[in-house]
Amino acid sequence: MGITAEIIVVGNEILRGLTVDTNSAYLGGQLESLGIAVQRTTAIGDDRCAIRGAVDAALKRSELVICTGGLGPTSDDVTKAAVAGLFRSRLVLNLAVLRSIERRFARRGVPMPAVNRGQALVPRGAAVLRNPQGTAPGLLLERRGKLVALLPGVPHEARAIWKGSLRRMTARLAGRGAFVHTTLRAFGLPESAIAEKLGRVEARLAPGELAYLPGTHGVDLRLTLSGPDRRRLRARLSAIERDIRTTLGPVIYARGDETMASVAGSLLIRRKLTAALAESCTGGLVGDRLTDVPGSSAYFAGSVVAYGNAVKTRMLGVAADTLRRHGAVSVETAREMARGVRRRLQADIGVAVTGIAGPGGGTKDKPVGLVCFAVAGPTGTSADTRVFNGTRRVVKELAANTALDLLRRHLNR
Amino acid sequence: MGITAEIIVVGNEILRGLTVDTNSAYLGGQLESLGIAVQRTTAIGDDRCAIRGAVDAALKRSELVICTGGLGPTSDDVTKAAVAGLFRSRLVLNLAVLRSIERRFARRGVPMPAVNRGQALVPRGAAVLRNPQGTAPGLLLERRGKLVALLPGVPHEARAIWKGSLRRMTARLAGRGAFVHTTLRAFGLPESAIAEKLGRVEARLAPGELAYLPGTHGVDLRLTLSGPDRRRLRARLSAIERDIRTTLGPVIYARGDETMASVAGSLLIRRKLTAALAESCTGGLVGDRLTDVPGSSAYFAGSVVAYGNAVKTRMLGVAADTLRRHGAVSVETAREMARGVRRRLQADIGVAVTGIAGPGGGTKDKPVGLVCFAVAGPTGTSADTRVFNGTRRVVKELAANTALDLLRRHLNR
Repeated sequence: MGITAEIIVVGNEILRGLTVDTNSAYLGGQLESLGIAVQRTTAIGDDRCAIRGAVDAALKRSELVICTGGLGPTSDDVTKAAVAGLFRSRLVLNLAVLRSIERRFARRGVPMPAVNRGQALVPRGAAVLRNPQGTAPGLLLERRGKLVALLPGVPHEARAIWKGSLRRMTARLAGRGAFVHTTLRAFGLPESAIAEKLGRVEARLAPGELAYLPGTHGVDLRLTLSGPDRRRLRARLSAIERDIRTTLGPVIYARGDETMASVAGSLLIRRKLTAALAESCTGGLVGDRLTDVPGSSAYFAGSVVAYGNAVKTRMLGVAADTLRRHGAVSVETAREMARGVRRRLQADIGVAVTGIAGPGGGTKDKPVGLVCFAVAGPTGTSADTRVFNGTRRVVKELAANTALDLLRRHLNR
Repeated sequence: MGITAEIIVVGNEILRGLTVDTNSAYLGGQLESLGIAVQRTTAIGDDRCAIRGAVDAALKRSELVICTGGLGPTSDDVTKAAVAGLFRSRLVLNLAVLRSIERRFARRGVPMPAVNRGQALVPRGAAVLRNPQGTAPGLLLERRGKLVALLPGVPHEARAIWKGSLRRMTARLAGRGAFVHTTLRAFGLPESAIAEKLGRVEARLAPGELAYLPGTHGVDLRLTLSGPDRRRLRARLSAIERDIRTTLGPVIYARGDETMASVAGSLLIRRKLTAALAESCTGGLVGDRLTDVPGSSAYFAGSVVAYGNAVKTRMLGVAADTLRRHGAVSVETAREMARGVRRRLQADIGVAVTGIAGPGGGTKDKPVGLVCFAVAGPTGTSADTRVFNGTRRVVKELAANTALDLLRRHLNR
């Protein structure tokens, strides 16, 4: 593999454990996908000398150095000054950057505080990388063919600048040597069961690599191949992907950046159907996920979050008798919730979730983590039950993803 | 402040972004609470020379070096060998460690795989730190009064060893000197405006420190003081906290681990009131946040997520005329949504959110990021409008947190 990179993370809050740094993992994965190996990540404090020393040392070892953090408007943000010092470059006011910061504040109807003016200072000779999400622009400096990029520490800003411009510039630097990868996303089987099923596929993968990345979203299968010829690699990748899909069947729900919500949304669009939700223990999380997808208003009617039993009866028409006989957490109640929301919100499909997120509220018969689901469509209603392990938040996330998975499987029938 | 420390994180999976390192943040916070400042955290790959070089360099700068990762049984786990090489110490079989590994496997009824025998090799002269959670023990080596600790990379194992023995040993090294800190959480003003207001407080803070940690939750203000006498530090911390609260007023919504949702929940409990939500652009996120708090069923009735206009009319009683004349995103619609959900869910307070999360759907009059809010109570309804910058997700999060903030301010009147 060609060039190497280092990442430098700046911020006292990182060293002191107040913030978990996720930028370096994001950038590490992104750089890897361009065939650039990250040699080292260094986290240091908001200290001019420490930053300057770390960037200098990294430039001696690697072709590309990406710094995150320390570009904010306050006095503890010193990354820019430190790197300008190392490059013996003066900080000069960039009027285009100043205007764009002023416009940001104007849009919010707020006068620009004086401290933000410092964010428009740019080391002479540095390229400005537009920040569509915040006031601190990214910066790119070059020395003897090696690059130093400065990004803000706020994760969504750093990502936006990376995607908007830095990725393209870095890819150019990376040059030849092919590297292909894809991620297949699985839901409904534990990591160990998937690994067992894929033993045969993995054996034929070398020198490629299959990484398992488990979470409440299921298990992501990250597949990487490298070699001299990109075309041949792509063909091999497609063959292996087909093999995995055949082995795991409907357990594979998505690929790449797709989410469970975006997949369910695409299926609703393709089948020209609308959906409505009746949520209890998830509190609104299923709808939150569905509406993270731009354009979801085309197929998502809305939800009733029926946290109390009275709301289940009044807003969803669940029979008081059903609640009394089977309880709020039961497939019977879930079925009536799904049918009720489908009818009242005049949607084609109703999806219901009711369960015990914990930590309290469990009984011997109905333990914490028990969640009942139902999907009601024009031809009938199906119901399912699961028991999840984990904290209140983990149970909510697993319940929300399972609800979306059941919707997806219903639409795929 | 007394001694300084460095953390070295070992693992290719970290550099390649497959795993987010949380050990260094945990250890950073723990060391800080002992008054030990972490100078630097370095992540490097599973490479013997890189590990040896990094530990050697760190020992030249700091009194304590903690390495995590690379203690597993497989061939890519080389931390122990690398550090033994640096200390010119031979690896010798430790029978007590071997017995405890064998016992672990025996308890699970599984014979010990041969590879795990390597985990019982210990550098001569190193102290063994018991691992109650796994097979790899922690190790502690000493050179000229400086310490190197090796911990496994699995987070719960590293934490168990830290708590079980390493914390005590480190505290002894740290000696005297007290260290107090607190976090105040602010919402409703940008970081730069808060910094301007707190200039006077900050000037009197030295040698203490005030860190600004911004996010969609607002701006966290982390206050740290150090000195010889803990009692006097605590008194000074209280005085500064009062000063900040006086300066910022209701902008400070919480302290420490409290969230906007837990604060709103506590106020509802204290005032014996219930709340219901009418959400549009947030899709259910406000309810998701409220129900992340255990016991929220005591005061949260439920929500209607009215994504489509038909649902706003049918489920919330918003007048068709209001929607026609003012549009779905308007304070008029927000007011009717809040009143409607309050009435229909029979709650004391109704909170409504309706806006344009983007990226599509904006017009010149109503841009992407425009969000209208209303809070309806027994004595009347108030409404607010904001324009947020950011991605769809960021707009949703800011809208949800603002809705909870308006509820909090309403309850505090």
